[in-house]
Amino acid sequence: MAREPYVSVNFSASQPGRRVSQKDIVEQLSEEIASGRLRPAMRLPPVRALEHQLGISKNTAQAAYDELVARGLLESRLRQGVFVSVPADGIPAAPVRNAAAPRLVGPDLPRPQPVRPERLELSNVFIDPELLPHAQLSDCFRSVLAVPGLHTFYDAQGHPGLREVIAERLRARGIEADPDEVIVTTGSQQALDIVARSLEHKVVATEDPVYSIARQLFLNLGCRMLPLRLDPFRRVDFDAWAEQIAEARPSLVYLITSYQNPTGYSYSTAELERLLELSERYGFALLEDDWGSDMLSCSEYRPTLRALGGRNVLYVNSFTKKLLPSLRLGYLLCSESTRDVLVAAKRVATLGNATLMEATLHEFISRGYYDAHLRRVHGLLDQRYHACLDLLRDGMPPGVRFSTPGGGPTVWLDLPRTIRIEPLRERLARRGVFIESADSHFYGEPHLNGFRIGFAFLSSERLQLGVRAVAEELVVLSAQAGAAPLQPIQIRN
Amino acid sequence: MAREPYVSVNFSASQPGRRVSQKDIVEQLSEEIASGRLRPAMRLPPVRALEHQLGISKNTAQAAYDELVARGLLESRLRQGVFVSVPADGIPAAPVRNAAAPRLVGPDLPRPQPVRPERLELSNVFIDPELLPHAQLSDCFRSVLAVPGLHTFYDAQGHPGLREVIAERLRARGIEADPDEVIVTTGSQQALDIVARSLEHKVVATEDPVYSIARQLFLNLGCRMLPLRLDPFRRVDFDAWAEQIAEARPSLVYLITSYQNPTGYSYSTAELERLLELSERYGFALLEDDWGSDMLSCSEYRPTLRALGGRNVLYVNSFTKKLLPSLRLGYLLCSESTRDVLVAAKRVATLGNATLMEATLHEFISRGYYDAHLRRVHGLLDQRYHACLDLLRDGMPPGVRFSTPGGGPTVWLDLPRTIRIEPLRERLARRGVFIESADSHFYGEPHLNGFRIGFAFLSSERLQLGVRAVAEELVVLSAQAGAAPLQPIQIRN
Repeated sequence: MAREPYVSVNFSASQPGRRVSQKDIVEQLSEEIASGRLRPAMRLPPVRALEHQLGISKNTAQAAYDELVARGLLESRLRQGVFVSVPADGIPAAPVRNAAAPRLVGPDLPRPQPVRPERLELSNVFIDPELLPHAQLSDCFRSVLAVPGLHTFYDAQGHPGLREVIAERLRARGIEADPDEVIVTTGSQQALDIVARSLEHKVVATEDPVYSIARQLFLNLGCRMLPLRLDPFRRVDFDAWAEQIAEARPSLVYLITSYQNPTGYSYSTAELERLLELSERYGFALLEDDWGSDMLSCSEYRPTLRALGGRNVLYVNSFTKKLLPSLRLGYLLCSESTRDVLVAAKRVATLGNATLMEATLHEFISRGYYDAHLRRVHGLLDQRYHACLDLLRDGMPPGVRFSTPGGGPTVWLDLPRTIRIEPLRERLARRGVFIESADSHFYGEPHLNGFRIGFAFLSSERLQLGVRAVAEELVVLSAQAGAAPLQPIQIRN
Repeated sequence: MAREPYVSVNFSASQPGRRVSQKDIVEQLSEEIASGRLRPAMRLPPVRALEHQLGISKNTAQAAYDELVARGLLESRLRQGVFVSVPADGIPAAPVRNAAAPRLVGPDLPRPQPVRPERLELSNVFIDPELLPHAQLSDCFRSVLAVPGLHTFYDAQGHPGLREVIAERLRARGIEADPDEVIVTTGSQQALDIVARSLEHKVVATEDPVYSIARQLFLNLGCRMLPLRLDPFRRVDFDAWAEQIAEARPSLVYLITSYQNPTGYSYSTAELERLLELSERYGFALLEDDWGSDMLSCSEYRPTLRALGGRNVLYVNSFTKKLLPSLRLGYLLCSESTRDVLVAAKRVATLGNATLMEATLHEFISRGYYDAHLRRVHGLLDQRYHACLDLLRDGMPPGVRFSTPGGGPTVWLDLPRTIRIEPLRERLARRGVFIESADSHFYGEPHLNGFRIGFAFLSSERLQLGVRAVAEELVVLSAQAGAAPLQPIQIRN
């Protein structure tokens, strides 16, 4: 039942240390009405509310109201409550208040579009929902729900058992890790957030192109940004990077060292060592995002900055893509000396996260479901990845390049400069094939000319439809561009 | 099985647009070894990893490795993999890299202590776990788990159905609200975070004392803070506030308008109107935190800034305390003009939150369980509140004051200045009764001399034990302080 809010009046006892009396209420309400602070037709607190607030008997409150009704200051309306009396000449207009509008600034992000699995989204970075272990997750939820008390409280650092199995898995990959160095987060995004908000000196370098929401996060937290150019078709130009770093002196370099998002590039061990050497020389910390691990077979044994460079490297990973996007579970691996400040940063951000989700993931991993799921997914995604490479090799005209990441959920398709992406995007959309606008990944004018292809999201059949559409439109667009015409494509069926 | 990470080498095809060949691998690995970038005993990628990454046949990769083994550059170890050969004079020490340590600064928060329901925690702000609807929540989880696909993806703004029932409930309280103005958050803490991180001009005023983790949040995000003194035993001194505001020009004033945390103070309607008038005059936005609503009966009809001051007021509430702390579900009510920037702020912070929790809460409210639960809790907490007031009235010596909030989970107990809190705290702890150190709520030297009593957390019996212990220690301490001795206490049994 809709009830209008009542006004709030604070009564005080005329005798210190005693309860508010009937007389106190009568006098103070009379004064509020006489002063105009209580205006005609305002609803007064129900007798029960006064009883509760003041710890007085219902009779005391009722008697005070009765007295004020008798004096003509209040009126009682059946089933509606007690109101300040309305004078014969009506209710003077209440002052309309309009609080000042907040002045807010925010990330330059478009309103998110919901994922629609029925659309042929060629650049989608998720794993095909058909491959996710819904039934086993449900099973684990049910076990967790059987725990009495439903884990009433939360551990701000994250479910202790989950932190233990995470540390164990990392050690099995050659990464030193202790459960007490693991902070469970809302996806890897929160892991990035708690690092970014804790930086003493807010200058951050990232690859260019970069995972765009990470860049928006750093900007949102007031960081000055330094773009380090990454071209997946060349080696990293460390001399250029070193020069920029020496000049701008970032406090943090954020990198996706394997299957970089969006290019698919993986750093070689020699390159990782070069990065560590630069970190030692220039004193910047490293934040390593391992977003694409565990999707294809063998991808879990890649070298990492954390394994090569020790406990100062901040390492981020997530379970979200591999299990269920809406789980929103990731983690930050830090060190004993950084943990307390990072947990405190998480506390001011969200206090702690939903324990049931953490407990369910713990159950899922402990039962061995996660490893079994990964083995199954690896087989299926390996096939999709190879089908994707085959389609691109056989179907793309000369001049079209693509990265071969061997992991993660996407490859980067790069087009000759004669092809403009925007008209291609529009033509494809008219055919029901959707590719991303990759501009947001770049700091300025894109130095690559392409987009991601999400081989993990689409079945090989749908991927083939999509790639064929791209190839056909490329032929048309290159003819329009007056460039040497690309040959029509033959795709194996 | 623990496997050490392999090194990562990026191969390139000598012929552009073609696959990497056996010859390419042999030549490039030879070069990497000769240059010292690949060092003795380093493990090479498994053949399958090369196959995956490069999209070449397993035979090509194997033949390349065989050739390099034949040349003595690599050696194959049974079941362990392929390694760079170790020369007869042993392995030269690898350079040990040690990335620079991150320089982080963070909130001034102690490491959180887990809630231990068996301890007599007199200042705990939670509701007694015994009163929470665990079984009904489990039921709702089970229904949600029966939905095919487990809500694979998430809505960054929050589950649409949940936003609808939240808006409906707010309208029933006289607050204009549209589902599209609701942003679901990880507890109310995230609601505060997304507002704070979006402020264009980072000067924030709060009450003093203040909910301390909100203050730490604002500080963490680089805000300059303005303390507005609140004394629950007096009216608000708006003249002083206006003077401070005119001087410091905050862009935002953060307030808990009902059952303020920690004092229990509630603003009268006249005071809320005065605040709105100041907002109009000085142009600051209002962030209203309704943390204590819905705990005692009648407390849901309190006037709010949002109802009185319109859609510019940002309003925050949470389900966490009332249902299950580990649910971590709250919301921010904003307006159409502020929504997009605030959703974008939430996206950079966590992208989106666990949909299953949101869907479960939606189910819980839709079934009517929430209203039924509140009715039951109101009855039980009303009793505890009154028992608490009775205990304090009958048991506390003269000179001890307490707020009578009539809502929320706590009252503020304020002691004569002759009593120092810290020795009291220590003496009580030795008796197994724990009270908070309230210093963190204040900006400087506390202008009140007390602590919160959490009547919602403890059964009346345990509350009585705790209050009696406080009363007894007060008598001892006041005698030690040489003040007029407080009388021994009689508590009704």
